[in-house]
Amino acid sequence: MGDDVSGGPVTPAPPRPARDVDAQAKAAVLAEALPYIRTYHGSTVVVKIGGEALDDPALTTTVAQDIALLSLVGIRLVVTHGGGPQVSQAMTAAGIEPRFVGGLRVTDDAAMALVRQVLVGTINSDLVARLTAAGVRAVGLSGADGGLMTAERTVGPNGEDLGAVGRVVSVDPTLLRSLAAAGFTPVVASVVPDATGGFLNVNADAVAGSVAAALGAAKLVYLTNVEGLYRDLGDAGSLISELTASDLAAMADGLSAGMRPKVASALHALEHGVGKVHILDGRVAHALLLEVFTDEGIGTQVLP
Amino acid sequence: MGDDVSGGPVTPAPPRPARDVDAQAKAAVLAEALPYIRTYHGSTVVVKIGGEALDDPALTTTVAQDIALLSLVGIRLVVTHGGGPQVSQAMTAAGIEPRFVGGLRVTDDAAMALVRQVLVGTINSDLVARLTAAGVRAVGLSGADGGLMTAERTVGPNGEDLGAVGRVVSVDPTLLRSLAAAGFTPVVASVVPDATGGFLNVNADAVAGSVAAALGAAKLVYLTNVEGLYRDLGDAGSLISELTASDLAAMADGLSAGMRPKVASALHALEHGVGKVHILDGRVAHALLLEVFTDEGIGTQVLP
Amino acid sequence: MGDDVSGGPVTPAPPRPARDVDAQAKAAVLAEALPYIRTYHGSTVVVKIGGEALDDPALTTTVAQDIALLSLVGIRLVVTHGGGPQVSQAMTAAGIEPRFVGGLRVTDDAAMALVRQVLVGTINSDLVARLTAAGVRAVGLSGADGGLMTAERTVGPNGEDLGAVGRVVSVDPTLLRSLAAAGFTPVVASVVPDATGGFLNVNADAVAGSVAAALGAAKLVYLTNVEGLYRDLGDAGSLISELTASDLAAMADGLSAGMRPKVASALHALEHGVGKVHILDGRVAHALLLEVFTDEGIGTQVLP
Amino acid sequence: MGDDVSGGPVTPAPPRPARDVDAQAKAAVLAEALPYIRTYHGSTVVVKIGGEALDDPALTTTVAQDIALLSLVGIRLVVTHGGGPQVSQAMTAAGIEPRFVGGLRVTDDAAMALVRQVLVGTINSDLVARLTAAGVRAVGLSGADGGLMTAERTVGPNGEDLGAVGRVVSVDPTLLRSLAAAGFTPVVASVVPDATGGFLNVNADAVAGSVAAALGAAKLVYLTNVEGLYRDLGDAGSLISELTASDLAAMADGLSAGMRPKVASALHALEHGVGKVHILDGRVAHALLLEVFTDEGIGTQVLP
Amino acid sequence: MGDDVSGGPVTPAPPRPARDVDAQAKAAVLAEALPYIRTYHGSTVVVKIGGEALDDPALTTTVAQDIALLSLVGIRLVVTHGGGPQVSQAMTAAGIEPRFVGGLRVTDDAAMALVRQVLVGTINSDLVARLTAAGVRAVGLSGADGGLMTAERTVGPNGEDLGAVGRVVSVDPTLLRSLAAAGFTPVVASVVPDATGGFLNVNADAVAGSVAAALGAAKLVYLTNVEGLYRDLGDAGSLISELTASDLAAMADGLSAGMRPKVASALHALEHGVGKVHILDGRVAHALLLEVFTDEGIGTQVLP
Amino acid sequence: MGDDVSGGPVTPAPPRPARDVDAQAKAAVLAEALPYIRTYHGSTVVVKIGGEALDDPALTTTVAQDIALLSLVGIRLVVTHGGGPQVSQAMTAAGIEPRFVGGLRVTDDAAMALVRQVLVGTINSDLVARLTAAGVRAVGLSGADGGLMTAERTVGPNGEDLGAVGRVVSVDPTLLRSLAAAGFTPVVASVVPDATGGFLNVNADAVAGSVAAALGAAKLVYLTNVEGLYRDLGDAGSLISELTASDLAAMADGLSAGMRPKVASALHALEHGVGKVHILDGRVAHALLLEVFTDEGIGTQVLP
Repeated sequence: MGDDVSGGPVTPAPPRPARDVDAQAKAAVLAEALPYIRTYHGSTVVVKIGGEALDDPALTTTVAQDIALLSLVGIRLVVTHGGGPQVSQAMTAAGIEPRFVGGLRVTDDAAMALVRQVLVGTINSDLVARLTAAGVRAVGLSGADGGLMTAERTVGPNGEDLGAVGRVVSVDPTLLRSLAAAGFTPVVASVVPDATGGFLNVNADAVAGSVAAALGAAKLVYLTNVEGLYRDLGDAGSLISELTASDLAAMADGLSAGMRPKVASALHALEHGVGKVHILDGRVAHALLLEVFTDEGIGTQVLP
Repeated sequence: MGDDVSGGPVTPAPPRPARDVDAQAKAAVLAEALPYIRTYHGSTVVVKIGGEALDDPALTTTVAQDIALLSLVGIRLVVTHGGGPQVSQAMTAAGIEPRFVGGLRVTDDAAMALVRQVLVGTINSDLVARLTAAGVRAVGLSGADGGLMTAERTVGPNGEDLGAVGRVVSVDPTLLRSLAAAGFTPVVASVVPDATGGFLNVNADAVAGSVAAALGAAKLVYLTNVEGLYRDLGDAGSLISELTASDLAAMADGLSAGMRPKVASALHALEHGVGKVHILDGRVAHALLLEVFTDEGIGTQVLP
Repeated sequence: MGDDVSGGPVTPAPPRPARDVDAQAKAAVLAEALPYIRTYHGSTVVVKIGGEALDDPALTTTVAQDIALLSLVGIRLVVTHGGGPQVSQAMTAAGIEPRFVGGLRVTDDAAMALVRQVLVGTINSDLVARLTAAGVRAVGLSGADGGLMTAERTVGPNGEDLGAVGRVVSVDPTLLRSLAAAGFTPVVASVVPDATGGFLNVNADAVAGSVAAALGAAKLVYLTNVEGLYRDLGDAGSLISELTASDLAAMADGLSAGMRPKVASALHALEHGVGKVHILDGRVAHALLLEVFTDEGIGTQVLP
Repeated sequence: MGDDVSGGPVTPAPPRPARDVDAQAKAAVLAEALPYIRTYHGSTVVVKIGGEALDDPALTTTVAQDIALLSLVGIRLVVTHGGGPQVSQAMTAAGIEPRFVGGLRVTDDAAMALVRQVLVGTINSDLVARLTAAGVRAVGLSGADGGLMTAERTVGPNGEDLGAVGRVVSVDPTLLRSLAAAGFTPVVASVVPDATGGFLNVNADAVAGSVAAALGAAKLVYLTNVEGLYRDLGDAGSLISELTASDLAAMADGLSAGMRPKVASALHALEHGVGKVHILDGRVAHALLLEVFTDEGIGTQVLP
Repeated sequence: MGDDVSGGPVTPAPPRPARDVDAQAKAAVLAEALPYIRTYHGSTVVVKIGGEALDDPALTTTVAQDIALLSLVGIRLVVTHGGGPQVSQAMTAAGIEPRFVGGLRVTDDAAMALVRQVLVGTINSDLVARLTAAGVRAVGLSGADGGLMTAERTVGPNGEDLGAVGRVVSVDPTLLRSLAAAGFTPVVASVVPDATGGFLNVNADAVAGSVAAALGAAKLVYLTNVEGLYRDLGDAGSLISELTASDLAAMADGLSAGMRPKVASALHALEHGVGKVHILDGRVAHALLLEVFTDEGIGTQVLP
Repeated sequence: MGDDVSGGPVTPAPPRPARDVDAQAKAAVLAEALPYIRTYHGSTVVVKIGGEALDDPALTTTVAQDIALLSLVGIRLVVTHGGGPQVSQAMTAAGIEPRFVGGLRVTDDAAMALVRQVLVGTINSDLVARLTAAGVRAVGLSGADGGLMTAERTVGPNGEDLGAVGRVVSVDPTLLRSLAAAGFTPVVASVVPDATGGFLNVNADAVAGSVAAALGAAKLVYLTNVEGLYRDLGDAGSLISELTASDLAAMADGLSAGMRPKVASALHALEHGVGKVHILDGRVAHALLLEVFTDEGIGTQVLP
């Protein structure tokens, strides 16, 4: 019968015991995530993982889990990463003293070889392995793979020769799209060839911004070692939850040197169609999940 | 540079405030859901909603939300439903006294017309509307649509003529698969045509089991008005968390009349390749989410 | 050899008997259908079946056969239907007196429940069963299924409250197209949800016109209980074979109350890209076949 | 309202005039065709047109119309043809006397050049033009095109050298399938290359049988200049409506020399999965339509 | 007309030097071809083979090999051909004296029958057989196949009636594209139906130009019996390597009668988007390969 | 190990003769390549480039050009590479003395970090850049990317602990196939993760063999620093052109230590469906082109 209970003697359900409150709380969390999953299902999210986060294996593991979860609900992730601390450490170990001009690392040929070995040969493949362990079908890339990016040399603020330091001049997202369509998650290291095939050291925040712009990403997320942007750098209570691109541009000069490339890249991405930029504290476990799937969000969110 | 912090003056992160404990708990719930999402991504889950659950608008709404969430993470849902209480109520209102033989509703032609009007014309389209409101692209069906099912007449336990009461003899899942591939969620009412095109009243639990078997579903979930199966019907503490099909078959005779069609359908489904059958308390908010996405699960789970 | 007769002794064909005249006539009918099949192959035709036609099982059967034939030659059919007489009869049986204001049925909540039960729970699924028996893979729908249509409440000519009576405000043909692409024929009942999910009673002629417009149908055919439009309502000899939309608009005021919604819907459809509208006598066996496949056509044809 | 008549004053339909009887007869013919269209929709039918039929422009035109109609209802047609009378006429005009050994045309090099010119350069392209005029997207082919067929030389019954006379040794239906998938209708002339690329004259009935076998055709139809097969060659009343392959094999020796290649090819086709073989009188207008679309069929039908 | 006579000093193919190429030289040749393969990979190249070239079996074989090689590296070839000398020879043999007005062959009905037999029934299928032997999946076509081309009658320079002589008025490249997509190489004979289905004799150079224009070909190559265009017809040293369309238009009046249709067609093609036109000496072995794959190219190249 | 040392008499690349190839000779070379292009069109060829070849920029450039040409004619290339000399050099520079046991490099954790940096961070991305410059859409991979390979630890011949040295236990070619289908050429470095995600140093010849077997490659080509295999290691005249797998197995014991892994991998590949294995002298310019596209081939060819 279409009626799902028979008409026989109705056995009354036994008295309901007190329900586990935790179960209902769990259900509420999952239900809260619903509209966000709907919103971002099928969207592209670019996540830039800072070098500091990559030094903490436990953190890297939760970031990998977060990326796996986001992938499974139909979000197309592209991961980019830097590795500043690791490069500096490798240089010191090799007897080369790290040197900076205007916040940019002076990168001679020997240094560039080290940068590639550390970023591509160590950090990128470690991250791929960690993501694989979390169930992500990660594929490590540099700017050379599949003609993904080209860069050109830049100089310091006063025209100083910085060696093999460059900025992105073009992004061809074909390979990223092919991999995503086949269910793979690209992981991009920030070394990029110039027109002659020589590799340049490019700021990883800028790479993230350029890739997000080329893909028309819905979100660009910076996982950093700060909680977000502050109105007043010395006042932890002045954390900014949300601001617009023009607000951000206005306050750019007052920011720390390390934050400036992020801000420039964020503005570039927002100008080129990226939906939102987030600056999160990568040291908070599951920061990525909390940002995407909860009502409160965390860190600082920048709107176009 | 590939290194993601500039080398300029390192601005120390402000002292971290105490983190919101809730945030970490939320993240933990989401992370716990991860392996389940991975397991069921792309799988088919058939959910049978009992008539009682459909009388409580608040419950129907949370069930609809759960189905929406499951859909969004890539699970292919097929919903089936009964409507016994509603049919009985309509019959009484129309001056026809509901009558049962061996737990089966005697369904003469006038009653059958009412069954169709209630199940197809009221309950099914109400459920479609509720699912639509939750963001599900639901499509209401009966067994006649797209040649989905055919049934044949059955008699009572002692050969009594039951009128237009039948049992499923074939399921053609083509329409269900076409709808799923196009992103729609089928909602199936348990009226099914026989070979001559006349409609029969079929037990909704049996419809759920037959559909799940035809689709090779990963899960078949019965949302009922009990907490699950009990070892001892009078003892709420004897709820069974998990048992096998053969255990279930052994205890079938001792079950309440209302539970028997569910058990028979569950055994049929498990014999035909369905991965697991669940008997859950549909009166618990988000029972479906809790069953699929948490480590504890709820209700009774039957393994092949 | 390429030459298909051998060169051996040529056996003269025996004298040809007089041919069966019927055979040649049959062949001529089939050959006459050729250019029409070519013209409409791959086109969409929306057929609105009036409630009266649905009361005659023999007629419904020939309509179902016609729809099957049109489908088989590559025409994409969408069927819509009303059920006015059946609704009035059900209301009377339930002790509710049918009441009309300006030709629109006053539909309070109890009446609306009946409308849904009759149109969706009885007429729609009966029609699906009949089409299935004729070999059509029919799928019954209401406006709620797959988000097909939304409606809003309307009032009577003098602002009277009509209850749950509405007019179509949007049509999303995605589900219709998905079903057609998979070889299924949608059958649409004229109950449509409003923005809150509550169902409204919508004129079936208007539903047909809106669906035809949304699909850019080649033809919209009304199967009615009249032979077509008359210049002079009392004069059967004044049947109009063909007229333009502007002619039709000019004569709208002089038409019977029952014809007005058809005319308004026809004009709406023609304004929105539908190729032709036909008003046929659904009581004539195979009216649909004759209209589409013969040189004479039947009934009244309205050109844009 | 869902009810399609308004409730206003019901305008009675004017008295119905006597219906045109012809209209109902037309409708009946179309309706009779329904189950046949359903049966053969998507099937492949190979039609062999005899050389005699091709000499009568009016007949060729109706054959072309029939093929167009069959195509439009979703039947995949492949046309093959011979041209014996035309070849003999061309040879005589060129001063070469046609000569036959055991029913096979002796074909020296000069004759073979003529066979190709007549079959490919005249008959095939005339037939393509006629089919095009009827709305068929015909494409003329010989056995060489797209590697369709290869043949090998044969000798006469007593080992006589016949020159460039051959039999089919392989058929590669790839090109036929590609053309059909793109909506084109292949028209195949019976000249076929051997392994060295030299062309051979192959019996057109045999080509039709081999092509039908390679395609697993549902039907193979011979349009001939006789009404069908007779039990008794001299008795027009002994026409056989239907027989089996084994019956046909048993009576093969008693047939006329011109009929033998057809019979051998028909048996070959039926052994290789072709559904039915028909021998029809191509001189009857629309013989093809009548055979496929009417209950009586015409001519002789051979079952496997 | 299908024939493509041209004039100018007849340059005999240069004597082939003894060849002894070592491994490195072979590698160098292959490597030199690389950028050309890259450039033309996926492009369409139309090759017109003159009637003279088709009289030399050895040459036809190397042309077929060249076409096979071009196909294998991903170039989409379409072959067109004439057959003037062969038609004249057949007319003479049949006792009809070839007659020309303003370089156009007067073609009465008897002549037209011969033109079709020679071009379609002999030359086209011989060429298909030769290409097949070289591994090309060639498919022979005339203008009638698949509705490829239509033509209309033309008259002589002074209005003379030329009989069945025409010029192309439309090209539908659908069939060519379908065949190419399925890996087949079309081979087009220059007989084209007019609107009534009657065949016309069309200049083969014009057919090549029209087809190349309709396909937006990257190259149109004329394989002729001259080395190319000369500045001074009597001076073999005045061969032109490269010129523009406007240069070519300027020198058109001074060209031989046989070269004029090529020039007119070349200009037509270049105006309609064809990338380059080449006039090569078809008597040089592998002229096609050398033109496409080597740095020097051969013959005369015309740029837009 | 990623390094691929081999031995035997070092044959210097032959002096390149002055080259002067005329047009006909060029055409002959191109025409000779035809059957080979046909044979390998659509096939997979795995090319292993030895570490020595990668030290000579000019050679790497011609190898890249060869790979580009092979890709353009429709061959699906997968490139693998080692880097033994480069690893040894980096270890020495870092103050770690390279140490071998039974021909396998002892690889402690510090050494493994260096191996990854050199193979993935330097050699692989240099090779990708070089291939990109030649027009190949190369994508660099290690065994971790997309779950391509897993390995397990091995010990020395006498059970010595070798550290992070492993052998391939599984290959999942999904990523390779996805990239190939999208027109990218994978370049695989021989570092492979074990089940725990830790990286192991795997012999590059073995990686090539395992990848070729998993893909069912038509050819596996080793580009080495020897001319091929010799019957008598000391006698340059004893180069073997062709031998079978069983011949090769029989002579395995007499080979140099560097050749043994190649031989074992070659035998493994041939047993698992690879069509042919080639051992070529990578120091000869365009060795790859000459092997694939010329009648003579070069080096040693091993048949199954």
